[in-house]
Amino acid sequence: MSSFLQLAVELAIILLAAKAAGYLSMRLGQPSVLGEILVGILLGPSLLDIVHLSFVNSETLAESIHELGELGVLLLMFIAGLELHLGELTRNTRVAALAGTLGVLFPVGFGWGVGLLFGLEGESALFLGLALGATSVSISAQTLMELKVLRSRVGMGLLGAAVFDDVLVILLLSGFLAVVEGSTNLLDLLLILGRMAAFLGLSVAFGLWVLPRLARMVARLPISQSVLSLAIIVMLIYGVAAELLGGMAAITGAFLAGLMFARSLEKERMEAGIHALAYGLFVPIFFISIGLSVNLRTLELSVLWLSLAVILTAVLTKFFGAGLGARLGGFNWLESWQLGAGMISRGEVGLIVANVGLGAGLVTQNEFSAIIGMVLVSTLVTPLILRALFTKKNESRLATSPETSETEESKP
Amino acid sequence: MSSFLQLAVELAIILLAAKAAGYLSMRLGQPSVLGEILVGILLGPSLLDIVHLSFVNSETLAESIHELGELGVLLLMFIAGLELHLGELTRNTRVAALAGTLGVLFPVGFGWGVGLLFGLEGESALFLGLALGATSVSISAQTLMELKVLRSRVGMGLLGAAVFDDVLVILLLSGFLAVVEGSTNLLDLLLILGRMAAFLGLSVAFGLWVLPRLARMVARLPISQSVLSLAIIVMLIYGVAAELLGGMAAITGAFLAGLMFARSLEKERMEAGIHALAYGLFVPIFFISIGLSVNLRTLELSVLWLSLAVILTAVLTKFFGAGLGARLGGFNWLESWQLGAGMISRGEVGLIVANVGLGAGLVTQNEFSAIIGMVLVSTLVTPLILRALFTKKNESRLATSPETSETEESKP
Repeated sequence: MSSFLQLAVELAIILLAAKAAGYLSMRLGQPSVLGEILVGILLGPSLLDIVHLSFVNSETLAESIHELGELGVLLLMFIAGLELHLGELTRNTRVAALAGTLGVLFPVGFGWGVGLLFGLEGESALFLGLALGATSVSISAQTLMELKVLRSRVGMGLLGAAVFDDVLVILLLSGFLAVVEGSTNLLDLLLILGRMAAFLGLSVAFGLWVLPRLARMVARLPISQSVLSLAIIVMLIYGVAAELLGGMAAITGAFLAGLMFARSLEKERMEAGIHALAYGLFVPIFFISIGLSVNLRTLELSVLWLSLAVILTAVLTKFFGAGLGARLGGFNWLESWQLGAGMISRGEVGLIVANVGLGAGLVTQNEFSAIIGMVLVSTLVTPLILRALFTKKNESRLATSPETSETEESKP
Repeated sequence: MSSFLQLAVELAIILLAAKAAGYLSMRLGQPSVLGEILVGILLGPSLLDIVHLSFVNSETLAESIHELGELGVLLLMFIAGLELHLGELTRNTRVAALAGTLGVLFPVGFGWGVGLLFGLEGESALFLGLALGATSVSISAQTLMELKVLRSRVGMGLLGAAVFDDVLVILLLSGFLAVVEGSTNLLDLLLILGRMAAFLGLSVAFGLWVLPRLARMVARLPISQSVLSLAIIVMLIYGVAAELLGGMAAITGAFLAGLMFARSLEKERMEAGIHALAYGLFVPIFFISIGLSVNLRTLELSVLWLSLAVILTAVLTKFFGAGLGARLGGFNWLESWQLGAGMISRGEVGLIVANVGLGAGLVTQNEFSAIIGMVLVSTLVTPLILRALFTKKNESRLATSPETSETEESKP
């Protein structure tokens, strides 16, 4: 079988498994991402090991699937940026900023401590903390929508906090990686900050002044899928520039590209196409490829304790950190705990951070598996806790109906 | 630079170059595919050689681009199948069948002869003929639309003939490859035909009875991009089954999958998504990757004569073959020559056939370059000849206005 034919077989299996598992997951009241990662684990070395079947003899197959998954992450972060409505979100800036910031600092700090307690090196321990810091916009929104409180005060505060959370974690991660990979003398540190500033400045300037005109011009040309192709090109260039120029993660660039495109009038002309590319093909491959890199067979008893510690730390610190932040921002106690509970679920960003760490050698297979377990468990408990807190007292619910769908994953 | 980052850079360059060249090509009154292949040649070993730049050190890069391009061909053939309206086409079956058949037999026969004249082996010479047989639905439709005669008697006859042409060439090619790769004793030949029949029978039965119900069921499920993902899965499985079960080309399977989906009520739910995937990303990569595999530097004088002979044979035999077929089918002489001229342009299928031949070792780099040249020249001359024949006498023009766009490439 030619190497392309092998890839075609694997892609058919991956897509079928991802969509079936995502559906089952939603039928059980969970976000589809949960099922997609779980089935990825089954397809991976833990059970079926589909990239090493008898008919597969291509060396490049695992690499090809990994690369398609990486394109999926970029698309996912691009869409996360694209879906932010800055106007709506800036209303609750105070609550969002405080809840988002404390909701990151608590897990990062305590996660660092847990890492040190379990005997990790300083850098690896801090990295473990960073992996606990990331919440997921899409999973939070999904959870809120299921509870029909997306447009409540808590809902908007939560969305805003999730954005602060994402941006903060990505900046911390990029800064951390830049420091780890470079040396730590002051001049080098300034250079790193200078490169970050140069990338951020250039990409924001391009996004504000050049991109809107470019998009308008391109939209008028008789080119098939012109705006969609422009979006992909800009996403790729921002991603590459983030790493090469800014010394930051490629996903930061893709996220920024999405944020910039969100302001463009041509956004609607390519939004459906980007969603088709992302959720029809690349994102399921990403979720499955995450599962493919977990090997449950290598888990040992010591990792079980680490996993339990990581999971407990992740759930409690996010809940109390974000909750306290919201209380300081002016929410009452119930609203604050509701917001805190909504922030517990981890998702793409946590997986991406873990992936980056595995690639950079900052995280071993054991910690990686613990983080995956944490993402799975935190995603599982969030709807349960939220449901309990919202049925207890419903005063903060100002839901408008019919509820509009905010995430692609929830579209019927 | 990581191998994924290298791929991201290459994809950005490829997409940008393809869309810019496609636009320029259309501004010059030519189909965009022409410009995309031409710029692919410039990006390839003939001039810039972008897969071997100084920063590129990944062994798998060229392979990854090639595989993405292969996904592009499958999508292209799937869309070709998807866009066929069997009802409309079956009105002029007699003209379509005769023009399509003679329009294949003439170029295949004379091309075979030219190959033998230039000293090729018997199999290679016949393969060269097969590469000359293929016309392109999308390029024909594009040309007709530019002349606003798509819905005329000649237009519908041409579309029908192009379909017969495509199907006949693919069947001839698949049969030829099966015979070449197997041995030629009678039992083996029967086995080959049996496998073909089994694949065709199973895939048509599945397409007629299972697929419509499956698509309807899947469309109702709360899965993101459910029908689109189903279409991709079915396309991949049909493609793989065509090779593994039927011994035919994977593109035949993808084409058949598209034909089957065209009958489904859920076609509209995924058509936009498939077009986004195809024309936003994968198809431009395919056209560029075709150019990437041509090396003009290796052309020698002997190849120049072969190229000229191939080009002349391709243009004249298609024109007279299809024209005579249309005349036998009942068209008057002017209509017949108009239809014949419309059939001259080669496109995707010719390139695909050439690609398959290169992969199977049936065609050397020299013949491959000659075929690429033939595709370029035939695509160039078709609009010129058609325009001349349609301005000469306009009686067969029954154009309805506003002319609706039939091909994605022509959408503004």
